[in-house]
Amino acid sequence: MLKKLKKEVLQANLDLPKYGLVTFTWGNVSGIDRESGLVVIKPSGVPYDELKIDDLVVVDLQGQIIEGSLRPSSDTPTHLALYRDFADIGGIVHTHSPWATSWAQAGRPIPALGTTQADYFYGEVPCTRAMKKEEIEGAYELETGNVIIETFHSLNLSPKQIPGVLVNCHAPFAWGKDAHDAVHNAVVLEEVAKMAYHTYQLNPQVAPMDQVLLDRHFLRKHGVNAYYGQQ
Amino acid sequence: MLKKLKKEVLQANLDLPKYGLVTFTWGNVSGIDRESGLVVIKPSGVPYDELKIDDLVVVDLQGQIIEGSLRPSSDTPTHLALYRDFADIGGIVHTHSPWATSWAQAGRPIPALGTTQADYFYGEVPCTRAMKKEEIEGAYELETGNVIIETFHSLNLSPKQIPGVLVNCHAPFAWGKDAHDAVHNAVVLEEVAKMAYHTYQLNPQVAPMDQVLLDRHFLRKHGVNAYYGQQ
Amino acid sequence: MLKKLKKEVLQANLDLPKYGLVTFTWGNVSGIDRESGLVVIKPSGVPYDELKIDDLVVVDLQGQIIEGSLRPSSDTPTHLALYRDFADIGGIVHTHSPWATSWAQAGRPIPALGTTQADYFYGEVPCTRAMKKEEIEGAYELETGNVIIETFHSLNLSPKQIPGVLVNCHAPFAWGKDAHDAVHNAVVLEEVAKMAYHTYQLNPQVAPMDQVLLDRHFLRKHGVNAYYGQQ
Amino acid sequence: MLKKLKKEVLQANLDLPKYGLVTFTWGNVSGIDRESGLVVIKPSGVPYDELKIDDLVVVDLQGQIIEGSLRPSSDTPTHLALYRDFADIGGIVHTHSPWATSWAQAGRPIPALGTTQADYFYGEVPCTRAMKKEEIEGAYELETGNVIIETFHSLNLSPKQIPGVLVNCHAPFAWGKDAHDAVHNAVVLEEVAKMAYHTYQLNPQVAPMDQVLLDRHFLRKHGVNAYYGQQ
Repeated sequence: MLKKLKKEVLQANLDLPKYGLVTFTWGNVSGIDRESGLVVIKPSGVPYDELKIDDLVVVDLQGQIIEGSLRPSSDTPTHLALYRDFADIGGIVHTHSPWATSWAQAGRPIPALGTTQADYFYGEVPCTRAMKKEEIEGAYELETGNVIIETFHSLNLSPKQIPGVLVNCHAPFAWGKDAHDAVHNAVVLEEVAKMAYHTYQLNPQVAPMDQVLLDRHFLRKHGVNAYYGQQ
Repeated sequence: MLKKLKKEVLQANLDLPKYGLVTFTWGNVSGIDRESGLVVIKPSGVPYDELKIDDLVVVDLQGQIIEGSLRPSSDTPTHLALYRDFADIGGIVHTHSPWATSWAQAGRPIPALGTTQADYFYGEVPCTRAMKKEEIEGAYELETGNVIIETFHSLNLSPKQIPGVLVNCHAPFAWGKDAHDAVHNAVVLEEVAKMAYHTYQLNPQVAPMDQVLLDRHFLRKHGVNAYYGQQ
Repeated sequence: MLKKLKKEVLQANLDLPKYGLVTFTWGNVSGIDRESGLVVIKPSGVPYDELKIDDLVVVDLQGQIIEGSLRPSSDTPTHLALYRDFADIGGIVHTHSPWATSWAQAGRPIPALGTTQADYFYGEVPCTRAMKKEEIEGAYELETGNVIIETFHSLNLSPKQIPGVLVNCHAPFAWGKDAHDAVHNAVVLEEVAKMAYHTYQLNPQVAPMDQVLLDRHFLRKHGVNAYYGQQ
Repeated sequence: MLKKLKKEVLQANLDLPKYGLVTFTWGNVSGIDRESGLVVIKPSGVPYDELKIDDLVVVDLQGQIIEGSLRPSSDTPTHLALYRDFADIGGIVHTHSPWATSWAQAGRPIPALGTTQADYFYGEVPCTRAMKKEEIEGAYELETGNVIIETFHSLNLSPKQIPGVLVNCHAPFAWGKDAHDAVHNAVVLEEVAKMAYHTYQLNPQVAPMDQVLLDRHFLRKHGVNAYYGQQ
């Protein structure tokens, strides 16, 4: 069942320690099969070096376990909320990668300060508002997804153009067209978080980059006339 | 004698360089067998890559050597003081891991700034007061334990809920239900020390996290209704 | 065709991840055969661990593809502009290495603060002005080369004495007598960017180093009476 | 000739990249045989991964080459000056390790801020004054040694108790009872430089550590009643 998707999701999970994005089990990747509406996700609390393909859990978009003997990631309701609302995405990753998490803890969005960010994010990486008492005490992980969605709707952002977010006082989520792409964007997010930190220390008054330059870089990779890479 | 405990303590010591917590021999791990009241601890000054199971030293809670031909870690009296007072802990680790040590040198506790810390520490990681002349010139390592204990008592903290501390002008100690768990918490402490540092640079006015969010994260991992992981 | 140059350029590209200068495909190296005026350059978007010698693209100084089935790096026009204007250089490297990129994003040149920089750069590493709307919307990569050249001409700098530059809001370029040497200088640039950052944090009022000391170090390695190394 | 010393010096040189103290060839280690007054030192500009025992150069205390076909490190006159004046030391290392170099570039000594430094340095790591025009233009490397010696004499410091120094606008030198011990101290110096940097960022008003605590830590490792380790 969903063999190919499971292989992708397994590999994407194993890429988290490879790219230095996780300590212990502090991260999880999922992928969705849009046709069947089924999501493959990492089981909760299983170390990456013990993770096997059959440990992965298959859930439907309402969170019902369809296959798998382990408990899915405790963040599963967040993933599902995002899949339900962001129709274009095929993979999601959550980590506590240290640079992005520092921005999340500071409650600050990461402005686009240079072409590295512009190559992947069409502007600032947003930071959600702090969650409310009733959200935290209620269906917390679902509400985490909801506050991300609220952020994108209220700022009128496209999840395809801004493939990641900082959850206030918590850590980043990133996504992409599939699980592999989601991890790719999580790596980019960590890298731009690090560079933006150092940029502000060097120049506290630095302004977000010019819109013309942002357009150029984002569109040469993602626009209809993209000319980066081999396709 | 204490074969299983020795294996655990050896492995936990070897995990220190693996997780990047130590330079040279700047760290030591111990574990206790609560039934017999015996403690297994690293010998003093032996490099990790030469450390063998028979090098480990067995001492009783009064510091008498029960087994082993090497001298135990010079920090042994600190470990023993903690085992005597903190009845719930089964393993202790001391390192000079650089981020936590920087906070200790600055004499600042690490406030809980986000969910990473909340997943393991039920609030701020405390920093002891500076030690007094007579404590330093007296039974220094024992007094190091005493000042940690004083810190926990005076702040009314539970060692089970706050599994680590910064010793002022010195470095961190961490503990857990066994030696492995103690090292796990030492890694967490180093990671949250690093992220809190960067968070303050990004937002010097940042406040400690909301108590509701702290409760939620600590209790979903450690409360009676914990739902993280597979148990 | 250009076998030896291709081998050099391949190796120099593979050195980028080895020295930690690149994330994913964020970098490229080229080398020129001055006799034929042909340039060997990395193909666009090909991961380093898949890169083979036959993937390299040969272009002439006007950008015409002479050999190779893949599309050359999108930064090729920048490389060619530099080769056309900087007659002494034989290799060029572009990366988004994080420390140098942070300075580029901050729009600050890196003053020579110590002998490490003086051993390779005869003074400050310049930062270009921000690019103009028409440059960005026009032949952007060519104009990137032009703004670098403008920087060197207007400051009256010698590309041989200052083998690198920060492109404002973007990232560094470095060069050298061949592809290997260019990568060498890119590593130096990253290292001095990191140290200059920390130096300013320790001493915000620090002045550029003494000209006499700069002379001594640069010339003992690069002057006619150089006495460093074995030649 | 000096087989054992050469093996030690070779190993100590190879330890520099192992401990992350050097980029390229930015470092060198020497050792002295006090009986014969002969010094074994790294050749100039030879990469560590190509360095063989027969590449090492033997010089006398006046700098005359006694054995070896390669040119000795360009820093040889600095090493020799230190051996001539600091009678107790048996090995010297020079690197451009990034944290210590950042302090040197900032022109700031590293105060003893905690027990890590106190375990090896009996107080602050000094920083030399800036060198004078005539020193730089004269016998520069010899004068580098002289300014280090002047620093120790004028501050009345013991090279045995303070096994390292920052050369203003340049980088650190460290030493010890032999080549291995010198590298050990160079690693310590880099580590305390990193932690002191972060400590000041966390607490700009932090004072040097208490003299009583400094005494306790330095003397438990280096005093006549030392009780750290196995001897």
